[in-house]
Amino acid sequence: MGMTMTQKILAAHANLPSVEPGQLIEADLDLVLGNDITSPVAIHEMDKMTTDKVFDKEKIALVMDHFIPNKDIKSAEHCKCVREFACRHDITNYFDVGDMGIEHALLPEKGLVVAGDVVIGADSHTCTYGALGAFSTGVGSTDMAAGMATGKAWFKVPGAIKFNLTGKPSRWVSGKDVILHIIGMIGVDGALYKSMEFVGDGIANLSMDDRFTIANMAIEAGGKNGIFPVDEQTVAYMKEHSVRPFKTYEADEDAVYEEEYTIDLSQLKPTVAFPHLPENTKTIDEIKEDVVIDQSVIGSCTNGRIEDLRIAARILEGRHVKKGIRCIVIPATQKIYLQAIEEGLVQTFIKAGAVVSTPTCGPCLGGYMGILAAGERCISTTNRNFVGRMGHVDSEVYLASPAVAAASAVTGKISAPDELGL
Amino acid sequence: MGMTMTQKILAAHANLPSVEPGQLIEADLDLVLGNDITSPVAIHEMDKMTTDKVFDKEKIALVMDHFIPNKDIKSAEHCKCVREFACRHDITNYFDVGDMGIEHALLPEKGLVVAGDVVIGADSHTCTYGALGAFSTGVGSTDMAAGMATGKAWFKVPGAIKFNLTGKPSRWVSGKDVILHIIGMIGVDGALYKSMEFVGDGIANLSMDDRFTIANMAIEAGGKNGIFPVDEQTVAYMKEHSVRPFKTYEADEDAVYEEEYTIDLSQLKPTVAFPHLPENTKTIDEIKEDVVIDQSVIGSCTNGRIEDLRIAARILEGRHVKKGIRCIVIPATQKIYLQAIEEGLVQTFIKAGAVVSTPTCGPCLGGYMGILAAGERCISTTNRNFVGRMGHVDSEVYLASPAVAAASAVTGKISAPDELGL
Repeated sequence: MGMTMTQKILAAHANLPSVEPGQLIEADLDLVLGNDITSPVAIHEMDKMTTDKVFDKEKIALVMDHFIPNKDIKSAEHCKCVREFACRHDITNYFDVGDMGIEHALLPEKGLVVAGDVVIGADSHTCTYGALGAFSTGVGSTDMAAGMATGKAWFKVPGAIKFNLTGKPSRWVSGKDVILHIIGMIGVDGALYKSMEFVGDGIANLSMDDRFTIANMAIEAGGKNGIFPVDEQTVAYMKEHSVRPFKTYEADEDAVYEEEYTIDLSQLKPTVAFPHLPENTKTIDEIKEDVVIDQSVIGSCTNGRIEDLRIAARILEGRHVKKGIRCIVIPATQKIYLQAIEEGLVQTFIKAGAVVSTPTCGPCLGGYMGILAAGERCISTTNRNFVGRMGHVDSEVYLASPAVAAASAVTGKISAPDELGL
Repeated sequence: MGMTMTQKILAAHANLPSVEPGQLIEADLDLVLGNDITSPVAIHEMDKMTTDKVFDKEKIALVMDHFIPNKDIKSAEHCKCVREFACRHDITNYFDVGDMGIEHALLPEKGLVVAGDVVIGADSHTCTYGALGAFSTGVGSTDMAAGMATGKAWFKVPGAIKFNLTGKPSRWVSGKDVILHIIGMIGVDGALYKSMEFVGDGIANLSMDDRFTIANMAIEAGGKNGIFPVDEQTVAYMKEHSVRPFKTYEADEDAVYEEEYTIDLSQLKPTVAFPHLPENTKTIDEIKEDVVIDQSVIGSCTNGRIEDLRIAARILEGRHVKKGIRCIVIPATQKIYLQAIEEGLVQTFIKAGAVVSTPTCGPCLGGYMGILAAGERCISTTNRNFVGRMGHVDSEVYLASPAVAAASAVTGKISAPDELGL
């Protein structure tokens, strides 16, 4: 039986000639990731183990990103715990204030993930690296602890769904709209424990940042992972960011997919997920009523990359955030932040009446930097709009692309850029 | 009996020919200030009054600055309360995300305070505006409520201490060193309920930003206010920032001062206040042991102005924050932030491994954006180093100038710029 991209990567890492869906395997790990919320738990788990060593100090990434610079004493204590662990074990890839960024933007940028890798991370959006042709998935802190100690993890080999992408997206349609469309179509459990494998000639029309966004939200359809084939763009990205060798895997012609969808990207429209699930999608032209907002957030591991900021700046350039609306822009890494200054984007944001934050996950998960009061409504480029996700249980989050979030900040209600004559 | 600068301003605002120390007067207010912590309390006090009107919608400034973008649900609810009040009363000077800044940097920048004004603010560092030759002082939220309703406030006329400043500070000595020196000399209750009146030819050698810093910390010596005479620099500053008419007051020759000090600015050295009081000062050469730090904070209403950032950037340019040290730079207003980008300062900070935050009071009062864990030590350009001020009760805060905070970020211990060969 033929294998999918994901299955081939897993077989190679389990030293098996082939694997099939449902099979339990033990795979070698190329990277184990934790952040300031999940790592302390993993570190405390490791304390209970018989070993006090990590399997490879260069294959562990500890990224302080959710609540730093420390938002309170508790988060300060968590970071201190991880910092001390990183120091004790001489962890090469420990990232703190100053060299920081949102983990899923930072790791590819630092060249720590390449095609063919198997990566686990104690964060659900670890699936992001599928954009590079890697297998990556979120795990709990206990699995992270075991991974740090042994360099291995158990997996049940996932079945797969094929998404055949064709055509070219129109001007204001981006990766975010593609994945929101898919989640709207198959539901938040539509890909439960399955690989979402993206194929087709439409992929050439998606930038790497688009692909990161799409793979990032595979988990929002319940996917075990999302994965893209490696093309020229992927290779160029890896060569720019990494010195590590990479390996590409192509699905066999007779690989088995439990479902197949074909999506014509040229037919997609800016898409918004209404409260309180990412599957509650409407295209912008289906929104008939005025959805007045209080806040617009542009950032996160989903949409805080340079291209996202460029799109938002193109819309905010020469315009102004509507009085009474808070617009918060969060570059995902220090490098992106600096590049955004060098390209004049940050200046555009400030002149438009937005604020620009240090890189952080912050508001996405109700951490800080833009928490909502009762009755408030936020349009956000983040990935989840569950009840109370960004603050009060009586607040609402609408998920959208940077283009729609920026345009909405200007009009004060959910809007496409077209409404601004763009 | 002759009057001091402060007494003359108060007499004029009480419509009295003269006042004397200890006298109770009712004075007209030019501005009533509140922030996101204190305004909600004042607003709830106003709800109990018989009036539901404010005395003058143009003479109230409501500045969201301590915990915005909202750090949690509670702060979100507080801001919402103030936002709705501002909307209901059509308050002209309501400042929120996007048009924001730390109140005591923002108000002078927006031209809302000029020489001769009487300003009350529900924030202890309201005394900052004395740099402009205004009488300004911190009050409680109840007084703020009464001020918003009536445009008047009761004061006990303060006695005064004269500080005669002479000479020119040497290269790395700034306003922060001047005021820390003074507080070290007279103690945290050395000016209790008194005016700290600064005079002398040394003032010409202090920039406006130096003066703001000095007046800002008058409260840390217990002062009712700090005040500077108006000179060419003051007039130039006001003309640049404000369209309001101003009035200058000079102390009478026979004005009574309870104490007088003469300080030769040329003799001052970089000064650091050790835990846990601003009066625990040592000059940099008196610090014999290595005081190793975990964090350096450059910002706040005391030292987040453009000149402060320029000094810090001069030190961080081409250097790097020591590994393991978190260096957090916080421009005090959006305007300062933008200017710092235009001058390349923000780029210097990021390249040096510092992070640059949205304008906020944040870490100064243990709010967010750099809270300390147990046992951690921070050098900070802020104004208070009380037990637990920036986080855990077992953390320590050392107060210093931007020059010393920046140099210390590079060396990892409390250092003067000289140690870097500067």
